[in-house]
Amino acid sequence: MSSLITFLSDYGLHDDFVGVCHAVIAGICPAARIIDLTHGIPRQRVRPGALALRNELAYLPVGVHLVVVDPGVGSRRRAVALRTADGRAFVGPDNGVLSLAAAAAGGVVEAVDLGRSPWRIEPVSASFHGRDIFAPVAAHLAAGEPLSAAGEPLATDGLTRLELPRARREGTELIVHVLYVDGFGNVTLDADRDDPDGPPWELGAALAIRGGGRAHPVRRARTFADVAPGELLLYEDGYRMLALAVNQGSAAELLGVAADDDELRIGPA
Amino acid sequence: MSSLITFLSDYGLHDDFVGVCHAVIAGICPAARIIDLTHGIPRQRVRPGALALRNELAYLPVGVHLVVVDPGVGSRRRAVALRTADGRAFVGPDNGVLSLAAAAAGGVVEAVDLGRSPWRIEPVSASFHGRDIFAPVAAHLAAGEPLSAAGEPLATDGLTRLELPRARREGTELIVHVLYVDGFGNVTLDADRDDPDGPPWELGAALAIRGGGRAHPVRRARTFADVAPGELLLYEDGYRMLALAVNQGSAAELLGVAADDDELRIGPA
Amino acid sequence: MSSLITFLSDYGLHDDFVGVCHAVIAGICPAARIIDLTHGIPRQRVRPGALALRNELAYLPVGVHLVVVDPGVGSRRRAVALRTADGRAFVGPDNGVLSLAAAAAGGVVEAVDLGRSPWRIEPVSASFHGRDIFAPVAAHLAAGEPLSAAGEPLATDGLTRLELPRARREGTELIVHVLYVDGFGNVTLDADRDDPDGPPWELGAALAIRGGGRAHPVRRARTFADVAPGELLLYEDGYRMLALAVNQGSAAELLGVAADDDELRIGPA
Repeated sequence: MSSLITFLSDYGLHDDFVGVCHAVIAGICPAARIIDLTHGIPRQRVRPGALALRNELAYLPVGVHLVVVDPGVGSRRRAVALRTADGRAFVGPDNGVLSLAAAAAGGVVEAVDLGRSPWRIEPVSASFHGRDIFAPVAAHLAAGEPLSAAGEPLATDGLTRLELPRARREGTELIVHVLYVDGFGNVTLDADRDDPDGPPWELGAALAIRGGGRAHPVRRARTFADVAPGELLLYEDGYRMLALAVNQGSAAELLGVAADDDELRIGPA
Repeated sequence: MSSLITFLSDYGLHDDFVGVCHAVIAGICPAARIIDLTHGIPRQRVRPGALALRNELAYLPVGVHLVVVDPGVGSRRRAVALRTADGRAFVGPDNGVLSLAAAAAGGVVEAVDLGRSPWRIEPVSASFHGRDIFAPVAAHLAAGEPLSAAGEPLATDGLTRLELPRARREGTELIVHVLYVDGFGNVTLDADRDDPDGPPWELGAALAIRGGGRAHPVRRARTFADVAPGELLLYEDGYRMLALAVNQGSAAELLGVAADDDELRIGPA
Repeated sequence: MSSLITFLSDYGLHDDFVGVCHAVIAGICPAARIIDLTHGIPRQRVRPGALALRNELAYLPVGVHLVVVDPGVGSRRRAVALRTADGRAFVGPDNGVLSLAAAAAGGVVEAVDLGRSPWRIEPVSASFHGRDIFAPVAAHLAAGEPLSAAGEPLATDGLTRLELPRARREGTELIVHVLYVDGFGNVTLDADRDDPDGPPWELGAALAIRGGGRAHPVRRARTFADVAPGELLLYEDGYRMLALAVNQGSAAELLGVAADDDELRIGPA
């Protein structure tokens, strides 16, 4: 196992949660290199975390992927470490946050329950398993210790899986849902270019988008600069997913969307 | 001395203050590994910085601990480097921000005044001692140079110490004070489980919390998920301190507390 | 070329843009050490990015300087890598964001167009050239590969240059412009101590600042603590530029300035 650890969480950077996890890892595996993918996942929102990790996966060297988006911390939700077919390790809560990336990594071939991991830091707090369970497990794995030593074996088919909404066509319209909103206010939708029900329109097409009782003109485009500042575009984002943006502005603000699953209808102008 | 440097400040991550300090350190000690504990300490607020560092200490490998929360930068406050009984080094302003952690590290056994440190970067600015004094000193210490070379010897008993408020009992009530509020809106109080005057209530007890002319029901619990979403709990936080939280919400917002020392009364419902 | 990469952008830390660029670099050049200078440059604002990089330069070890502030991503703006007289490499969009630092580094001695760089990651997205072009190019350079292999040769005199406003005197007043506002609300102006048209006033002088139809008293001072809390000071900032601050407050808020080029007049009280 590589000594590379990627770390994704909803801890934010306002507090010391992330920093203390780094310190714990450095104490156990001084050679580990930690890449902070992001700690800006919306608080306690499993799906945006799962999607981010899945999308990033193709860009991540094989290593240990530490993921902490854990609204059920201290409850009965399981803490797990997984090995996938392509040789990666994933460490985090078993609430679905690992499931999309693990599937993209070839599927889970080995799983352990970390609830009584010998690598836990005692006393295990009720609210900071990132520090007390997940970070030390990631560090031991990065140091080359085997997954089987991290906890008790677990059936891989009992792991929690996440279901995503799916875009669908209705007549000339594409019904899409908001998967997440990034810090620029760009809105990722549940359709991608390889989707057979995906967007049928040509680059440059003038379209309309309807939601929340309002309609907005939107242009199918390749990138922000293809439309005038302040105008809305429908494009393929950096992870090849269909997305909405405003050139030099915020699509989320313009459209008034924010939450998961908000439904929008895209069709001819 | 280890080449590990931990770095805690109120610089935030909006600007380049932290990044430039990293660059200065890399220039002096390329082998130094820097762990950013947090740069989200509330601006110019010494006590939350001192508390965070003290709480984190048990999780930090021995090394150089660089701390910059420095409302008096450029004034007569001293800049210092300290060695503690357990072999750690602390570098920062002598305004009390190092004092709680230094005590937890066994107490200060050697101190130097950095005001004319030979390791300063000239010209020393009046407002950015992190870059011009503290970071270079931390880097030289991480490179193995002795503390005594960092500046002029200083009596350890003249260092600034911080005093904290103390929870106290009054009849059936516990009078507590807000020590700080984290980014989730969780509120840390000035009582811990080892405090003889600490919280007497059993897990599950239904209590009331009074402050600012209002009262709120609160349940003594182990973790967030022990109460319903939106409900207030009184729990032991990740550093074993008494704290208030709202499951999937913000206790600070619900209670209207923010500032240091806000007083709250906790008692039977 | 050193394996040190500094990274400055407007990506923010809310999303995974920065983290994924780190991962891409680690995959190509595992030995690269990355210093995040800041990712808090105001979104798509080239000038604050260019100024920050120029100011930081004296504190940065020689290495590869990766810069992504790129409002024209996906348009015809060029992507470039530059070598400067002092042995540094700069990688980023050719929109002026590199120009001030490159000049401070002795000027550009070699330039290549990265539009069809063999080091691009395919498929190159239309909106995330940081990940697909700039980060991989920085990583290959940090790994010791030559600039000439990064893309097609480019005339150095055709690179985009940035022009800054200049402070000027008018009678007893100094007419200044806002260059940028940091996270503390400190306001950097377009004058520095070496400017022949720079501020003529002695430390301690009581002055007035006029802008937006209002006037405020301001004191020429060395550092924040030289004035009372809440009071405005005119000082030389950490990069020796003239700046305005409020002790323990925000000058930007007090003065109501935010945008580039806001004009202010400083003169006798």
